[in-house]
Amino acid sequence: MVAEPLRTVLRSATREHVIGHDTRFTLIGERINPTGRRIFQEQLRAGDFSAIERDVKSQVEGGADVLDINMGVPLTDEPELLAKAITMVQGLTDLPICIDSSVVEALEAGLAVYQGRALVNSITAEDDRMAAILPLVKKYDAAIIALPNDHDEIPMEADKRVDLTAKIIRVATEEYGIAQADIVIDPLAMPIGADTGTTLVTFEVMRRIRDEFGVNMTCGASNVSFGMPGRHTLNGSWLPMAMTSGLTSAIMDTRTPHVVEAVKAADVFLGHDDWGMAWISAHRAKQAAEAAAG
Amino acid sequence: MVAEPLRTVLRSATREHVIGHDTRFTLIGERINPTGRRIFQEQLRAGDFSAIERDVKSQVEGGADVLDINMGVPLTDEPELLAKAITMVQGLTDLPICIDSSVVEALEAGLAVYQGRALVNSITAEDDRMAAILPLVKKYDAAIIALPNDHDEIPMEADKRVDLTAKIIRVATEEYGIAQADIVIDPLAMPIGADTGTTLVTFEVMRRIRDEFGVNMTCGASNVSFGMPGRHTLNGSWLPMAMTSGLTSAIMDTRTPHVVEAVKAADVFLGHDDWGMAWISAHRAKQAAEAAAG
Repeated sequence: MVAEPLRTVLRSATREHVIGHDTRFTLIGERINPTGRRIFQEQLRAGDFSAIERDVKSQVEGGADVLDINMGVPLTDEPELLAKAITMVQGLTDLPICIDSSVVEALEAGLAVYQGRALVNSITAEDDRMAAILPLVKKYDAAIIALPNDHDEIPMEADKRVDLTAKIIRVATEEYGIAQADIVIDPLAMPIGADTGTTLVTFEVMRRIRDEFGVNMTCGASNVSFGMPGRHTLNGSWLPMAMTSGLTSAIMDTRTPHVVEAVKAADVFLGHDDWGMAWISAHRAKQAAEAAAG
Repeated sequence: MVAEPLRTVLRSATREHVIGHDTRFTLIGERINPTGRRIFQEQLRAGDFSAIERDVKSQVEGGADVLDINMGVPLTDEPELLAKAITMVQGLTDLPICIDSSVVEALEAGLAVYQGRALVNSITAEDDRMAAILPLVKKYDAAIIALPNDHDEIPMEADKRVDLTAKIIRVATEEYGIAQADIVIDPLAMPIGADTGTTLVTFEVMRRIRDEFGVNMTCGASNVSFGMPGRHTLNGSWLPMAMTSGLTSAIMDTRTPHVVEAVKAADVFLGHDDWGMAWISAHRAKQAAEAAAG
């Protein structure tokens, strides 16, 4: 008995986007995030938001469906910074936003200013995280990304991740009244360089979560090739494999055509691009752009 | 209850290659085939085999593990041509060979001269094809590619393809004494341009054949993108998806780095390249070659 596939509806003020098992893969642009970007951090501390404008443009041009915004800059007022960035990005694009913070007050400040139906990133299966964040998700009618781990320990066994997923879904739906369709599970993709056995577990977790719960799934797709050479090629193979296993979205760098095109090709084979019309149109547009440039 | 994964052992005079679910994906070079190559056909008719030498070289350099040889040139003595080509190729490379013909006499002539343990391409589930070819497979201790279709009709339903696979395995093992490990099923990948729903059926067939029978599988991988633009990108996404579903080899053009690299990346994620050492070595060799080229 396979669970009915669920659809997660996100909205900006004027636009709706659906994450689903029966529709094309959702690309969540990962770029508006100062982690590991020293210059961007300094600019944000100095009140210079110009890099965000460039990041929005490049990710939208690369095909992002949703933009993740993280403003985790040490020694700043993160709630204020995140609210300001969200308001600014909503003035630049009509894509829905994924509000990304480990700070509860920042998530609340972001949700308070956001126009539409946001995706919140993220909770774990830890009771205190769920108790702090799920009431906000309910209050602001948002959707939530949830990681099936607890106590900062990532379980290597598929059974444990599936059990924690079941716990998250039970608590979120029964105790906080959140719809199962609004829970997006991150099945925890690890860097392949750490252990080449981990990916098989993650694919199994994806298949089981799809079949047992029907919920949508996302993950940080750039992460899987961390520390390896040829990262674009690795990411471009991993995503079609994960999509085949049930992944319905990823937080990724949409500025890399190799990886975005691998996803679009997989959409064709999964029957999410009828007659390949989107694929063919994109190919024609690319050829026309190349002809115009050359 | 999942069937034990089987290993298909192929050999040339001096080298062994194993197709398996627990080892890296097998690349069968498709290029030594005159179908659709008018000039090559004319050369072969005139006794000029020089193109074969170039094709062997380019496919071996591209990473082929096995070479398919088809000599289906109209109005020639195909058994003589195929035997001659096999002997020639065995003088050029120590890779095992896949002997490819629809003509029984050509398969027999090829098997008679072949040094080693060949893969024969192919039978269907039709009784007369099995009766004509399986005794040769047994006599020459070869392995066989089998297509789960009968009466020239490709069944669209997964159930039908799985049933015909069961029939082939039963007949080959019980009536002809062929080991199940030596039966390689071609799950019949169709061009995506014909119907974007077909791929999902093929992936389901692959999963079921792997789980129910444990046999190896191969297919003509270039075929899936027939008639579409951006074929290398499509093929480079399809193969990792098929590998995730249980495909263990493909008859493909190993001269296309984009597609070969997508397969090698998928091998890393499937745990068939321990610690990614083959991936890292290949990347270093490529960088060294680029540096040497200037």
